Amino acid sequence: MYKGGYTGRILRVDLTSQSAKEEAISEELAKNYLGGAGFAIKYLYDELKPGTPPLDKANKLIFAVGPLTATGAPCSSRMAVAAKSPLTNAVGMALAGGHFPAEMKRAGYDMIIIEGKAEKPTYIAIKEGEVRFRSAEKLKGMMTTDTQLFIKEELGDHNYRIACIGPAGERLVPLACIVNERRAAGRKGLGAVMGSKNLKAIAIRGHHRPEIADAEKFKKARQAMNKAMRDSEVLYPHFAKDGTPMIIDDMTKMGIYSAKNWSATGEVNLVKEQGRDAQHAMIVTSAHCADCPVGCTQVKLVKEGPYAGYLSEGPEFETTYSLGSTVGVGYLPAIIAADRLCDEYGIDTMSAGVTIGFAMELYERGLLTKQDTGGLELKFGNHQAMIEMLRQMAYREGLGAILCQGSKKAAEKIGKGSEEYAMQIKGLELPAYDVRGAKAHGLNYATSYTGADHNRGYAYQEIFGIPHPEEVDRFVIEGKGKLTKWNQDVRCVTCDCATMCAFILDMAVPDIACQNTADLVSAATGMHLAADEVQQIGERINNVARLFNGREGFSRKDDTFPKRIMTEAIKAGDSAGQLISQKDLDAMLDEYYQARGWDKNGKPTAAKLKELGL
Amino acid sequence: MYKGGYTGRILRVDLTSQSAKEEAISEELAKNYLGGAGFAIKYLYDELKPGTPPLDKANKLIFAVGPLTATGAPCSSRMAVAAKSPLTNAVGMALAGGHFPAEMKRAGYDMIIIEGKAEKPTYIAIKEGEVRFRSAEKLKGMMTTDTQLFIKEELGDHNYRIACIGPAGERLVPLACIVNERRAAGRKGLGAVMGSKNLKAIAIRGHHRPEIADAEKFKKARQAMNKAMRDSEVLYPHFAKDGTPMIIDDMTKMGIYSAKNWSATGEVNLVKEQGRDAQHAMIVTSAHCADCPVGCTQVKLVKEGPYAGYLSEGPEFETTYSLGSTVGVGYLPAIIAADRLCDEYGIDTMSAGVTIGFAMELYERGLLTKQDTGGLELKFGNHQAMIEMLRQMAYREGLGAILCQGSKKAAEKIGKGSEEYAMQIKGLELPAYDVRGAKAHGLNYATSYTGADHNRGYAYQEIFGIPHPEEVDRFVIEGKGKLTKWNQDVRCVTCDCATMCAFILDMAVPDIACQNTADLVSAATGMHLAADEVQQIGERINNVARLFNGREGFSRKDDTFPKRIMTEAIKAGDSAGQLISQKDLDAMLDEYYQARGWDKNGKPTAAKLKELGL
Repeated sequence: MYKGGYTGRILRVDLTSQSAKEEAISEELAKNYLGGAGFAIKYLYDELKPGTPPLDKANKLIFAVGPLTATGAPCSSRMAVAAKSPLTNAVGMALAGGHFPAEMKRAGYDMIIIEGKAEKPTYIAIKEGEVRFRSAEKLKGMMTTDTQLFIKEELGDHNYRIACIGPAGERLVPLACIVNERRAAGRKGLGAVMGSKNLKAIAIRGHHRPEIADAEKFKKARQAMNKAMRDSEVLYPHFAKDGTPMIIDDMTKMGIYSAKNWSATGEVNLVKEQGRDAQHAMIVTSAHCADCPVGCTQVKLVKEGPYAGYLSEGPEFETTYSLGSTVGVGYLPAIIAADRLCDEYGIDTMSAGVTIGFAMELYERGLLTKQDTGGLELKFGNHQAMIEMLRQMAYREGLGAILCQGSKKAAEKIGKGSEEYAMQIKGLELPAYDVRGAKAHGLNYATSYTGADHNRGYAYQEIFGIPHPEEVDRFVIEGKGKLTKWNQDVRCVTCDCATMCAFILDMAVPDIACQNTADLVSAATGMHLAADEVQQIGERINNVARLFNGREGFSRKDDTFPKRIMTEAIKAGDSAGQLISQKDLDAMLDEYYQARGWDKNGKPTAAKLKELGL
Repeated sequence: MYKGGYTGRILRVDLTSQSAKEEAISEELAKNYLGGAGFAIKYLYDELKPGTPPLDKANKLIFAVGPLTATGAPCSSRMAVAAKSPLTNAVGMALAGGHFPAEMKRAGYDMIIIEGKAEKPTYIAIKEGEVRFRSAEKLKGMMTTDTQLFIKEELGDHNYRIACIGPAGERLVPLACIVNERRAAGRKGLGAVMGSKNLKAIAIRGHHRPEIADAEKFKKARQAMNKAMRDSEVLYPHFAKDGTPMIIDDMTKMGIYSAKNWSATGEVNLVKEQGRDAQHAMIVTSAHCADCPVGCTQVKLVKEGPYAGYLSEGPEFETTYSLGSTVGVGYLPAIIAADRLCDEYGIDTMSAGVTIGFAMELYERGLLTKQDTGGLELKFGNHQAMIEMLRQMAYREGLGAILCQGSKKAAEKIGKGSEEYAMQIKGLELPAYDVRGAKAHGLNYATSYTGADHNRGYAYQEIFGIPHPEEVDRFVIEGKGKLTKWNQDVRCVTCDCATMCAFILDMAVPDIACQNTADLVSAATGMHLAADEVQQIGERINNVARLFNGREGFSRKDDTFPKRIMTEAIKAGDSAGQLISQKDLDAMLDEYYQARGWDKNGKPTAAKLKELGL
């Protein structure tokens, strides 16, 4: 049995009966699934009946931290939040940082499983092993910042850390997220799952520090990690100052910063308005997750003009896309305001913005009219209309009641051929990178178990030109199957399971991420994992997730792209002429499935499952 | 020397040298000035040179709690905040409740005197006697809720209580207030004084409980107070449920709920839209100040429509007037949004709204045009325009740069005879009660040392029909001089100095407020004060404040009304035909000055000063 790192305890909460019990984490679970997303997906796979409606009380909402969380390992205050997704019907898993994850570990839990459904709006207060169910009647409809403040005041201790939903989650909006402070487990509609359980918030507080199995070895591993971070040519000199928006300039230059619902990538250049310099001018301070020496989140504040007073943590690169370039908006103050409003409503900035961009294209093409929009001039670049539409989506009002379901379902409702403009895969809206100009990044979008999700296997080789495990040409198709498998497995275990921060790993130890994780986790837990064993955990979880999705009906047909990506080339810029044809996709999928040991239809073979002990 | 109640300590902070020192509170000060506003005004009078410009570093900003604060006496977590006012040039004193006052006492101070001016934006963190000066560079421009959150995170303890300014105070807007949580020391521009000192916030935390001199006697006095509160026919059955807006219906019925910049009182009836029932429908919970068993603040939340998501503590009755009836707005969601925005900007809802109402009348009369308003249709009832104008006032943009100076100075700038529409006395905008139909309430507006301030001598006899100390007819002139003196002295000592909550006193012990205060204070402090001695403290402070204002040039000529009140009668409703003519005012002033022992010009006589030991 592991001696450190973990608390060894799962809290299983039944909202229906308003009761909670503790369970132990087995050594087998720890060794095979490590933590975070590994734990959560394993439990979802074992405990959810196939076909469970995502907003049914039979769905489960799981919060899981990793074996390094709250150990003092840098950048480890992160958690996986998972459930069957109401947006994709597949595994819904999103990560969040902040202070909640470390506090959850200190309160004594590696994982919290939320089951059932409360009869009335409820929040849970957890402190040092004590679980209280409290009425959230008075919190109904509150924005997320107010929600957190009122709970802290009611509990008589403002040092609780709180994860909660806003009005969008309460209204079961499939784009709703879960917010802790101003951080979000953003994507896949997990806020709607929380809302469907009548759970407004989880407040948590604790002082337990996980034991460390081998303190000396752990100290060395930490020091090595910190040294690698200090030595990085990117991390402190740039990333700590600029945060994720630092890549707007580069992505624009590479011609893969998607614009106007992917209709104008490479043609629109917003660098002057929302690029690195523009961003820098609006930074007031940086924000740190617990145990993070970097503090990449650049807090920005609008100091004058129509959006004066709005502050957001970020907006992150993805948000400058979703509430910026893909809706044709360069004006940073509007993006900051929209970002903050999304956090307050508890709605995913990415899916919300991309869905609005989709609606804007429909409006410009005449597939939506002023009658549909309630008079809104829903054109690209109209930030007032974007902000009003966000509100309508959060509150299910007007056209928002349709758009809040995400671009896939909205297209089904709107009809008229609008499907082809819905930039989504498996129901999840596409991230910022126009993958017509970054093929492995694209294959990852197509195959991620969560839908179009850059975080499940980020092809930093293509995006940052880092030659590891090998040098790659971002326009080339060949080799991207194997690369994507590698990226997905490594990212899965290091970030999603060990819950180390992806940004830090990519910039400090891209070439030794698994070794680094193995060293830290082994020292913390006493499990003695080698780097290749660690990587195999990532592979195992990708297979379990594939099995979960397979029994929900997902197969090769769903590992695909919106029509535009396969038929329209990027028209201008450094990626002009690029697309990913059906043939390209088929070739990449064949290679990918082969590398994965899956059959031609993308189903894990018996041999592979046996190899992974499944 | 007193044995309890007080901490006995003053914290004197010099922002220029970034240093702090402690001073003792003398027995003489305690006996003669009791605490709160008494302490603050005495110190301002002694320490400020006449003619000190309010936004000069020589002005002082004083926070003072009372001898009952944090003793457990009900409804005593209140504080006086005082400085020379940039809005009136007179004594600026405003009260605030919440948790900050109790925390300040627990941190060990009866009074905090802020002097000088920091070179750069600064905040002060005070914990158990330790004072730290910290950079507020990163907080510059932040709204008040975000400011408080960032300070708590930076200090590593979210249980600090914080008083801060928003963007308005930083920009020295003379309508700026000081906010703690969602409570404000709202009026007289004290936020601008704080801003002029480059002081963004005071964060405070402590665990000291003041000693009680006679615990047995104190317990009895507390029990008597609690019993009086329980026995009140108004307090728990109504006020605890409805808060201050409960009187909208009554004030409307009495025809004294001022409307459209006092041009349409009695003609406009907003009861259906913003009266008791409408208010009640939007309440989500109540909020309590520390040590308050009542919780009169009804927290309201907009749950749908264009202002969905806005939450405010209140809006209090005065705000339903200033951001409602006097700007012709009945729509409660807009008032809630505007109320919250004022709290976030750190701007006084009352003066801001009344000044906008003034501008709306000018616009409707053609004295302001669309060119002046930047295209805004600034008509009565246009809540979008009101909300945009609040932003412009907080940020000194457009017409807001003029209006943010308050209606008196704005009228001077605008000219064209606009002065007669500026509903202000001594520069302070008028509260909700149309005093043409409540003469003593009006005389109090005219004579309060802070300008048109209902709180300095609230004529509850006229407003609520409570026959004490005698039965009064609200339309009658005679007797109102004596009554006003009585109201001002009692209110001053019980609320402003002992810092008991005015609402509670009026509803629980209107007839024995001084006796009640005497009992509680005597037991807590060991000072053995009789009720008449307590009342004399109130008189003493009103005289010191008059002396302060006198040396700044104020005299009888300033104890007056806007022209409309003296020349236009209320046109409709139960107060139709009422006005306060110059003759009426003169008669009331003569009686008032005589009752006060002041000469014909309103100057305290030597005999009176001697009697009061001044």
